[in-house]
Amino acid sequence: MKVDGYAYRAIFRQPGVQFVTVVDQTVLPHRFAFRDLATEEEVADAIRTMVVRGAPLIGVTGAYGLAIALDEDASDAALAAAHRRLLATRPTAVNLRWALDIVHREVAALPEKERAQAAFAVADRLAEEDVATNAAIAENGLALVRKAWEDKGGAGPVNILTHCNTGWIACVDWGTALGIVYRAHDDGIPVHVWVDETRPRNQGASLTTWELGSHGVPHTLITDNAGGYLMQQGRVDLCLVGADRVTGGGDACNKIGTYLKALAASDNNVPFYVAAPASTIDWTLMSGVGSIEIEERDPHEVTHIAGVLADGTPARIRLAPEGTRAANPAFDVTPARLITGIVTERGVAEASSDGLAALFPEKKAA
Amino acid sequence: MKVDGYAYRAIFRQPGVQFVTVVDQTVLPHRFAFRDLATEEEVADAIRTMVVRGAPLIGVTGAYGLAIALDEDASDAALAAAHRRLLATRPTAVNLRWALDIVHREVAALPEKERAQAAFAVADRLAEEDVATNAAIAENGLALVRKAWEDKGGAGPVNILTHCNTGWIACVDWGTALGIVYRAHDDGIPVHVWVDETRPRNQGASLTTWELGSHGVPHTLITDNAGGYLMQQGRVDLCLVGADRVTGGGDACNKIGTYLKALAASDNNVPFYVAAPASTIDWTLMSGVGSIEIEERDPHEVTHIAGVLADGTPARIRLAPEGTRAANPAFDVTPARLITGIVTERGVAEASSDGLAALFPEKKAA
Repeated sequence: MKVDGYAYRAIFRQPGVQFVTVVDQTVLPHRFAFRDLATEEEVADAIRTMVVRGAPLIGVTGAYGLAIALDEDASDAALAAAHRRLLATRPTAVNLRWALDIVHREVAALPEKERAQAAFAVADRLAEEDVATNAAIAENGLALVRKAWEDKGGAGPVNILTHCNTGWIACVDWGTALGIVYRAHDDGIPVHVWVDETRPRNQGASLTTWELGSHGVPHTLITDNAGGYLMQQGRVDLCLVGADRVTGGGDACNKIGTYLKALAASDNNVPFYVAAPASTIDWTLMSGVGSIEIEERDPHEVTHIAGVLADGTPARIRLAPEGTRAANPAFDVTPARLITGIVTERGVAEASSDGLAALFPEKKAA
Repeated sequence: MKVDGYAYRAIFRQPGVQFVTVVDQTVLPHRFAFRDLATEEEVADAIRTMVVRGAPLIGVTGAYGLAIALDEDASDAALAAAHRRLLATRPTAVNLRWALDIVHREVAALPEKERAQAAFAVADRLAEEDVATNAAIAENGLALVRKAWEDKGGAGPVNILTHCNTGWIACVDWGTALGIVYRAHDDGIPVHVWVDETRPRNQGASLTTWELGSHGVPHTLITDNAGGYLMQQGRVDLCLVGADRVTGGGDACNKIGTYLKALAASDNNVPFYVAAPASTIDWTLMSGVGSIEIEERDPHEVTHIAGVLADGTPARIRLAPEGTRAANPAFDVTPARLITGIVTERGVAEASSDGLAALFPEKKAA
């Protein structure tokens, strides 16, 4: 999507090079900078420290990481080890395993000297497919926004609440939930986005606001606490969130706090949609609560926070008393019963095993 | 309660002086400092900028403010004007009106020259009564914690989730919801508190952690997003929150985000109690959603945040892109249907008009 009128992607490879370039998401919104990832360790670090984040982008980045690793050592042992190391960088998103498995499968049968080049080609293809997938999700979600607009008689903008960042920098381009917002906005439907700040890492406050502002979509930042109140007041027409993993039964594991918004949406009859590509669906799981490994991140993400001082200098401050113990689970699971529908590249599925199976019959059979 | 082994109160008047001293809550947890409030304007500023906050403390501080105003000008016109100005400092908490009305009523019939002294005496009395009230709330809530402990067979601590700050610095001493925690802890029941950070002003991260740490109560800081997940995991035995206003029908208006936790508690069968003195009950309202004025605070509280740098220097940083629009509603309303009970100084009431009327029959009659 656009920044200062120019179109960008969150990850790209210059023709012929054996490394990949990403938008550095740890310095946004205060600086828009790129970072080259040229070794497997740099890729793993970038995923772990959230230089790149967002389930679809993590998948594509992991695929490039495997290609980069193979460029150094293409032996079977190296392939297996790099696959294992990259997979361990973030445990919750299923797209990472999905992308790594595809690269592994497609290169494992090749002679060693062809593996790296083939892996780069697979990663390039996954990146292109991700753009097409998200464009399809945006297209399928467009009807939901249009319906919300018609339901309010075209009076005022459609007020969409979103959590975390699901935009183009969480993917390769477009985004999942935010891709739908861009599509509707570009199509001329007036939209206004309530942006949850999304503590502790503030992806909403720092990334979603920046994305929407850069593309020209009206939005208002709110604390994670405010969404329920806004729904009680009838000031939210639609909730659109992403997912790091969707179970075969339609439960959605997403950024911590999503479940609370889904409860409020259900309590106030606000439609609550999860936008996610098929690669996010974990067909090995039916139910999510208790069965998905929830990443516990550094407690300092809760006790400390980063931003810029009045003069623009980056700074990190401590919020709590020194030595305060903190817990930092990164995701929660929203049960299918609270989800109005799951927007995929194939269409909008009911959040249930039947609904998902109807859209992905080949998976049901598997 | 205790800090470094010494007992403190959040507000106190030295014998004979015509001003009041408060703990400055804007510099906690990084500095434990006191501030003298010697003019009505200083009192109003202290309430508005949250040097003092917490519904019970706002009430008592307002009462002292009226006394201080009368010390300058005790005319009928000045009394009415000061009452109006102080009432306007925070619109949501009903205790402020309650306390100002008591002072007004008790001094209005007196000769002008006696009014200031009488008002100080009333404020002193309200402060003492607040301590007694909170001690009674703590006593009444103790049984709930004990029951939670027995329900888990005395295995491990009672995990109590709380939102915002309802401790001794939100009152004069003890606190409301946190007063119950102190009472249980002092009584030897093992408790562990999940402390919601409570964005945007982080009263949980900065004040509740500091209070609990200073008194020696085990606790863990979490983001406001995490509570639902913890309840899904069975890691919360009890929710205890305060209120800025309780309607005659049992709805509770409290710090923004409380409603989301109540929804999660209900969804996971976790008992959810509101602890509040009778002075918090607004008998003129039956239902809270839509009828209580919700204070909208400065959007900079959302886009910016204060803390200390690594060397302890206070600093304020910006989190969002420059010029980001933000909304900052300070409270929400939790419907009575989500509240297990309301812990008052008279006992624990069912959150309903019948439940409250049974405990306060004289109000029902009014």
